[in-house]
Order: sequence, then C-alpha cells, then structure tokens
Amino acid sequence: MANSSLSFDNPIFAQFAFYAAVVLLKTLAMSVYTIRFRLTKKPTFDEDVERVRRCHLNDLENVLPFVLLGILYVTTGPDPGTAAFYFRMFAACRIMHTIAYLTPLPQPSRVLMFIGGHFVNMRLAVTVLTSGSF
Amino acid sequence: MANSSLSFDNPIFAQFAFYAAVVLLKTLAMSVYTIRFRLTKKPTFDEDVERVRRCHLNDLENVLPFVLLGILYVTTGPDPGTAAFYFRMFAACRIMHTIAYLTPLPQPSRVLMFIGGHFVNMRLAVTVLTSGSF
Amino acid sequence: MANSSLSFDNPIFAQFAFYAAVVLLKTLAMSVYTIRFRLTKKPTFDEDVERVRRCHLNDLENVLPFVLLGILYVTTGPDPGTAAFYFRMFAACRIMHTIAYLTPLPQPSRVLMFIGGHFVNMRLAVTVLTSGSF
Repeated sequence: MANSSLSFDNPIFAQFAFYAAVVLLKTLAMSVYTIRFRLTKKPTFDEDVERVRRCHLNDLENVLPFVLLGILYVTTGPDPGTAAFYFRMFAACRIMHTIAYLTPLPQPSRVLMFIGGHFVNMRLAVTVLTSGSF
Repeated sequence: MANSSLSFDNPIFAQFAFYAAVVLLKTLAMSVYTIRFRLTKKPTFDEDVERVRRCHLNDLENVLPFVLLGILYVTTGPDPGTAAFYFRMFAACRIMHTIAYLTPLPQPSRVLMFIGGHFVNMRLAVTVLTSGSF
Repeated sequence: MANSSLSFDNPIFAQFAFYAAVVLLKTLAMSVYTIRFRLTKKPTFDEDVERVRRCHLNDLENVLPFVLLGILYVTTGPDPGTAAFYFRMFAACRIMHTIAYLTPLPQPSRVLMFIGGHFVNMRLAVTVLTSGSF
C-alpha cells in the first residue's frame, strides 16, 4: 500500500517538501528583488518595477495553490513516479517562468511556462477532488 | 474520541479535501479566464478585465486562508456535523460570490457572500487559536 | 527523538497552530478594515484606502508562505526552543509591521519588521529544503 502520511518517513512527502521549499524560496526572493529595485529606482511608476511586481503576484497566484494542493495530493497516496514528475515539472516551469518574465524573453515562452505550472495545479486538484467525499 | 489526523482515513479530512479542491479549482479557473479575456480584448484598461482581476484577487485573499485554516482546523478534531457545515458554507459562499461578481449581480449579493465566507474563516481561526498553545 | 507529527499531541505543532491562527486572523481583519474604509470614504482613489490595501497585500505575500512553510517545518522535527523562537518572532514582526504601516510610523520601522518576518520565512524554507529529497 502506498504511504500517504505527511512525514519525512514518506519518500513522496520528502520530495514534495523539497520542491515546495524551492518554489516558496523563489517567491520570497521576489519580495527582496522588488524592494531593492524600489530603493535604487524610486519612481512612482517604472516599467521594470511593475514587471517584478506582476511576476511576484503571478507567483502568489500559482505557487501558493501548488503547495496547498501538494499537501492534500500527498495524502491521496499517489504513484511515486507520477508524483515526482508533477513536482519537478511545476518547479521547472515556475523557475523558467520567472526567467522569461524578468529577462524578458519573447512570448510565448512565458505563457507556455505558465500553462505548464497551471496544468500541474489542475491535475493535483482533480486528483484530490476525486479522492475526497462531499 | 474524534479522529483528527490529516489522512483520508479521517472522514472529516476526506470531506475537507473535497471542498478545498473545489474552491482551489475555482480560483485556478479565474487565471485562465483572466488570460482569455486579455487575449481577446487587449486593452491597457478595460472594465471587464479589471473585474475578473479583482475577483481573482478576492479569491486569493479568502480561499488560500481557508485551506490553511481548514488543515489546522481538522487537526483539532472538530464535531463532524459542524465541520461539514463550515466546509459546505464556505464553498457555497465563494461560488455564489464569483457568480455575483462576474454577472454582475446587484449589491448587496456579493458583499453578503463575502461576509459568509469570511465568517467561516474567522470561526476556523478562533477554533485553532483556542486549541493551540503559546 | 523529536516529535514531528502534524497533531496537537506534538507541542511544537500546537504552538505553531496558535501563532499561525494569530497571523491569519490579523490578515483576515485587514479585509474588514479595507471594506469599512471603502464604505465610509467611497473615493476612486484615496491615500488611506490604498495604504490599507498595500498592507493587506504585503500580509498575503508574507503570512501565507509562513503558514505553508511552518507546516512543512514542523514535520522536520525541529528543536522546540528554536521553533518557538521563530514562530513568536514572525508573529511579533508582522503585528508590529501592521502597526507601523497603518499609524503610519516613520521608516525604517516598517522595513525592519518586514525584514524580521522575511528572515524567519527564509530560515524555515532552508530547513525544509535541506531536510527534503529531490
């Protein structure tokens, strides 16, 4: 039987915790980046500050749901290979999304990375939904 | 004794997971809706895009705290009937809030739905607070 | 061996749950404050409404990651004294941050409180990261 506990004894949880910490650290780093930008540029409106700001907000919209859904998903006792694939895909998409947003790289690079992360979130949500009871 | 574990063996958790996935899916759907709107309308400012945007932000402010508080609330071993009532009330209020926001329906429909969801969040927070230690 | 379960039998979790509920309640209170302000002032743009709004957004950027990281951090089985220090420091910084934002107190009071909370989040994230597997 698959291990579905929220503890480091469960290898799926240990892996989830790693990738959740990676994407949360990345999101936290955006706050520092925004502040540094504001201190050095100090305009009321600036294109670069606004880009960092929107990128940070996009992270909050995607990374926070991922961590919440991931916690619930781990408790469904998923297949370890499938779970690892989703966690890595999400982390990779969000890191590349930030690079595409801040460089900035030409579209559709950013939109594709957003869709990749969004797909994982939807997939985790549906798995949790169908495991739950109402 | 009430079951307070974060696992699908606990019927309260199984129910929480279902409703948490419902409201998170609804929130994720808002991102897609915003993007589709932006792609078809493409203005710098548009009343409809802004409404979807604010509705999405309102979801993040309410749905993410609900899922966090719900996880902590389940561990307090609440009465199953009370817990089910809160989870269903929150999900119903947030779905109706989105409908009221996007249709848009005349006020106070939206404010009342917001208050319903907010009340559940406050109630869960107080239960967790009084179960915790400082 | 340190207790690392997500249950009130674990004193570290019981303490985390208390402080998580405190900072989430504070964040929820900001929504009510924003609405009350809007109803009494009703301008399209107002300096005070905008300050409450930005303060609320700043909470979402910091408080929600704290609760997520805290849940994962508890499962690493941290030293109880260290854990208690981080939880209290975060809650104190965020409460003082809000006071500094809304009074408003002269800088750098607000920035220092932000840095304090941010430091705790980074510290929790690094602990979870180094405990996880990839």
